[in-house]
Amino acid sequence: MKQANNHEKFSENFKQIPKSFIREILNVAGSDKMISFAGGLPNPDYFPIEALKHSAGVVFQNNGVEMLQYAGSRGYLPLRQWIANRYNKKYQLSIQAENIIITNGSQQAIDVIGKMFVNRGDDVLVEKPTYLGGIQALSAYSPRFLETSLNSDGPNIVETGRIFEENDVKLMYAIPNFQNPSGITYSEEKRIKLASLLNDHKVLMLEDDPYNEICFDQKCAKPVYAYAPEQVFWTGSFSKMVAPGLRMGWVVIPDGLSAYFERAKQSVDLHSNNLSQHIIYHFLVNNDIDQHLKTIRNAYARQCALMQQLIERYMPHNVHYTKPRGGMFLWLKLPYKIDAYELVERTMKQNVVFVPGSSFFVSANGQSNIRMNFSNASDDKMEEGIRIMASELKTMIYQSEELLLL
Amino acid sequence: MKQANNHEKFSENFKQIPKSFIREILNVAGSDKMISFAGGLPNPDYFPIEALKHSAGVVFQNNGVEMLQYAGSRGYLPLRQWIANRYNKKYQLSIQAENIIITNGSQQAIDVIGKMFVNRGDDVLVEKPTYLGGIQALSAYSPRFLETSLNSDGPNIVETGRIFEENDVKLMYAIPNFQNPSGITYSEEKRIKLASLLNDHKVLMLEDDPYNEICFDQKCAKPVYAYAPEQVFWTGSFSKMVAPGLRMGWVVIPDGLSAYFERAKQSVDLHSNNLSQHIIYHFLVNNDIDQHLKTIRNAYARQCALMQQLIERYMPHNVHYTKPRGGMFLWLKLPYKIDAYELVERTMKQNVVFVPGSSFFVSANGQSNIRMNFSNASDDKMEEGIRIMASELKTMIYQSEELLLL
Repeated sequence: MKQANNHEKFSENFKQIPKSFIREILNVAGSDKMISFAGGLPNPDYFPIEALKHSAGVVFQNNGVEMLQYAGSRGYLPLRQWIANRYNKKYQLSIQAENIIITNGSQQAIDVIGKMFVNRGDDVLVEKPTYLGGIQALSAYSPRFLETSLNSDGPNIVETGRIFEENDVKLMYAIPNFQNPSGITYSEEKRIKLASLLNDHKVLMLEDDPYNEICFDQKCAKPVYAYAPEQVFWTGSFSKMVAPGLRMGWVVIPDGLSAYFERAKQSVDLHSNNLSQHIIYHFLVNNDIDQHLKTIRNAYARQCALMQQLIERYMPHNVHYTKPRGGMFLWLKLPYKIDAYELVERTMKQNVVFVPGSSFFVSANGQSNIRMNFSNASDDKMEEGIRIMASELKTMIYQSEELLLL
Repeated sequence: MKQANNHEKFSENFKQIPKSFIREILNVAGSDKMISFAGGLPNPDYFPIEALKHSAGVVFQNNGVEMLQYAGSRGYLPLRQWIANRYNKKYQLSIQAENIIITNGSQQAIDVIGKMFVNRGDDVLVEKPTYLGGIQALSAYSPRFLETSLNSDGPNIVETGRIFEENDVKLMYAIPNFQNPSGITYSEEKRIKLASLLNDHKVLMLEDDPYNEICFDQKCAKPVYAYAPEQVFWTGSFSKMVAPGLRMGWVVIPDGLSAYFERAKQSVDLHSNNLSQHIIYHFLVNNDIDQHLKTIRNAYARQCALMQQLIERYMPHNVHYTKPRGGMFLWLKLPYKIDAYELVERTMKQNVVFVPGSSFFVSANGQSNIRMNFSNASDDKMEEGIRIMASELKTMIYQSEELLLL
């Protein structure tokens, strides 16, 4: 039988994956001149290069054969035990190494969980807005996306409950800490209420938590997982704690499901990078990770505060912004239905880039929103970038007001 | 709406992924006492630990920030250029870095290509037998598997042509060099004829080629890709050239499709491990890789020959085996419909393990076949293992003959 040309052969699921504005921008933003608020790039000033280099030397010396050979699909046991211990101590939980599988960043966990559970047309509930990479990974399974509104303290619980009542939700995907893109954090009360809904309706949740350790406050709320451990896959990442180029994350898996996750993980890439697992483990147990994290938190908290000050100083007063207590992003709402895509087209000509909000919705929303990364730019560049954004924004507002007067 | 319990929520696609006997055995085979012919484990004696350690030190020193940060989804450009150059020189091709994307071992390329092209029920043609990891990765897209017979010089071309005529084959998955599990290699003539079929019928092929550099002969045939570059995704791997724990492979992509592969790769894990990419690149350009490969090839050729001698010496004469010209496996056919699962149950009690053949078929076949890895065991252990296998096999044959006499 004669076949179509290659471009006509893409699977129906593949066609659902949206392009990533961010990743395309990253290709452009590679240039040194560019001031980027676009990516979720950690500040490289805090990469522990020397310590990781030392750890690499030691593990090559001591574990060379083991770490260069094929390994089990679940990941390096001491590293999984370390993660379990840290969480258990931090949140008074009783996670076992058995519950943890190492992944290529937490992004891979989203894909694998999609593979495990999502049939074409299944209802998947996401936040409004949500992480683009989550939309991309889950879109490849062609779900029917539903959305629940976010307030500054988390999802609208009444609305979420109604969605669970009225639909057959297979999976909820959400980011309760320092949400990407909005920067908001769920209150303890909302976490407990959401967990209760998950338990009552037996809905699975993917609690994506890559910024867990980048909490500016002294004390952070327990994860939703703590209140619904049978329903929640809880992901974590070394990308923000250590470095993203190592592509190391993990997922805490409800009892009885690890063997299934393992089978799906096997099918996609056999197992995670063994070298990075050994290096990170050695780094974690031979350095003061809490001191390291304190440095990052303080730096990001300062950068976050600076960005807010600069927005106040340069932007029109009717630009609204969120006030994150952690993570790497804040979220702007532009006035007068100003189109964020038009704004970025203008600022890119002056080497300033950010991500327009519409990338973060599974529906047509966010046209006047912007996600701003505050962790990557230097103080000077941050000021220059926001000044340029503000100036172009004012021009656009002036032009739109002119139109209104005609 | 009330939901089912977690185990009832698996996707229809996930349920198609078969378990891996090999991976489960690897968990058992971790014990030092075990003589394993099961995994596809490279011989760790040839891991270039010192050279990789040195490269790691240098790249941390010189490229620390770059390699620890997020990076593009296609992979490290100099590494992609190195791969293109090597293939172009070896086979007189004109592959560009643009055609290459770095993956987490070649396993990930199988998953991503499945994601890109395979709809539920699409016809996917595989060899009979074929690589279990390929079956696992592709099963997750619920294709209708078709099979084509393998002879000692490659697939039956008449049968393959008829399958293309009579079905709407979306993708052919095959391993022309030192096939896993059979050890056979396609002749140049069959490669050309197969390419011609692919071109005529506009069928896509995934040419899985992880053992490309483990060719015992002086000269190896060109890949099928060389004769049908518009139809063939051609994967490669550093697992056998350098070390598998680094989880680094790549795929050569037909013109015009790299951007699509990139989008699917993004959705599954953003990008491949940056540290391993930098280390491998530095290792490749600062060491005599051809000398390194010559050492591995000579060692594996010797081990392969030894295994054949030991089979001749210990096994009954009506045990048939293939004579690989490269790679890491040979393939046994037991006489009298002896059940390979029963044999492995017996030998495991004496700490000898191998993979029964039925794992390598999408149909009910291979019950009396065995895949034998020859690269991992020492000479002494190989002899002891084969002696034990032969002894148990003889007992089983004796018992089956007894039954026939009754």
